[in-house]
Amino acid sequence: MTDPAPITLYGVSSPNVIKVAIMLEELGLAYALQYVAVFQGEQFTPAFQALNPLGKVPVLVDPALGRPLAESGAILFWLAEHYRQFLPDHGPDRYEVMQWLMVQMSAIGPMLGQFTHFRLLPENSQPYGFGRYGSVAETLYRAIDRRVADREWIAGDAYSIADIATFPWAEYIDRHGFDQAEYPHMKRWREAIAARPAVRQAKERVFGEFSEASQRSVADATPKDLDRFFGRSEKVPEQDYSGVKRMR
Amino acid sequence: MTDPAPITLYGVSSPNVIKVAIMLEELGLAYALQYVAVFQGEQFTPAFQALNPLGKVPVLVDPALGRPLAESGAILFWLAEHYRQFLPDHGPDRYEVMQWLMVQMSAIGPMLGQFTHFRLLPENSQPYGFGRYGSVAETLYRAIDRRVADREWIAGDAYSIADIATFPWAEYIDRHGFDQAEYPHMKRWREAIAARPAVRQAKERVFGEFSEASQRSVADATPKDLDRFFGRSEKVPEQDYSGVKRMR
Repeated sequence: MTDPAPITLYGVSSPNVIKVAIMLEELGLAYALQYVAVFQGEQFTPAFQALNPLGKVPVLVDPALGRPLAESGAILFWLAEHYRQFLPDHGPDRYEVMQWLMVQMSAIGPMLGQFTHFRLLPENSQPYGFGRYGSVAETLYRAIDRRVADREWIAGDAYSIADIATFPWAEYIDRHGFDQAEYPHMKRWREAIAARPAVRQAKERVFGEFSEASQRSVADATPKDLDRFFGRSEKVPEQDYSGVKRMR
Repeated sequence: MTDPAPITLYGVSSPNVIKVAIMLEELGLAYALQYVAVFQGEQFTPAFQALNPLGKVPVLVDPALGRPLAESGAILFWLAEHYRQFLPDHGPDRYEVMQWLMVQMSAIGPMLGQFTHFRLLPENSQPYGFGRYGSVAETLYRAIDRRVADREWIAGDAYSIADIATFPWAEYIDRHGFDQAEYPHMKRWREAIAARPAVRQAKERVFGEFSEASQRSVADATPKDLDRFFGRSEKVPEQDYSGVKRMR
């Protein structure tokens, strides 16, 4: 008798990967982590594009599903439905969870991601982009804070995939230069999630197992590698992306 | 006997609203359209914030759900599950549809939205933002084109909420300055969707019913209104947003 093929999570040390690791830990599932050397363009190789034609992590390979699945929101949804946890089976609460999962996927993730991008550029080089996405980030942090001011979890009374999706992005608040003390409800909610054993274990595993490869990948990245990583084509003015080496 | 309260779709003439109208038409449901004067800040009024605390359209009020639902991706998901159409009930195809719905929600929508934003700024005022988001937009249009090169619909053999979600954003390709002829598979896919009676009807209703209010809302918008609409706080350098009046 052989062991069944394990679940494999392809990724890097990023919020969208950590949310999937948290979900796997919350479900008590065994899984392998596979680092993708994004600064060296591994996500654009035929092998990786067969997993996700968009060349993005995370990707989950779960034998129970039978085909690779990309997009962290879709992965959380698959795991929630298959293992019947962290998403109500039916009723209005189910759609409220999905609404807040979509808020994370459509706004919190992409917009905090843009702010992170403009923050790594040389200081004052792009004041409009920096200001614009900083302002959007502040609005979103405020929205999260208000949202958990009078309810325990993002989508109501139960911890759900909306919390799991939002938490790793909410952890950016300090390094984004905002004072967490001004977001007391979000702080309470973040601390409650951070204290969960599954969350501690997920962060330990992702940061631990990816640490060495991640440091090497970013240290070895040439200016050309960074242009490719950030999707800079010849239509985009040259830019100094070396700030990414100081942000890790 | 009184008529049941109708489904109401709150919105403007935007891709995220049109996708919901397409879904309602595809399902043959009766619905009312309610314009939200976004340039005058109606989305920030207590009445609207009770529908969606994030102050964004679309919002669907569907008596069958019993509470307002925001985020176009969550609305499509609710309608697909409740009316059991355009999303498989189970199996790998269900999660493939959700993956591509998430691609639209997390990348195609937010990133084409950023390109639209930088395009409305005075020419050459923000070459980096303009170049960056134009380059991302091109990558995404290419990804859609490749995706439908060897399959009829975005998520495979069946027309799904992934197609409904992606179509109104794909319609930006011309005004974004790309030559549709270079994206032949996407063109074939777009034309197949555009020819569907439900799609024609949805566009007619949204553009028709919102036309007058929309033109007035944008024409009446003061520079202060535009700052608020675009979320420009005092931390963001001043910017000329009047280009939005020429884009409608």
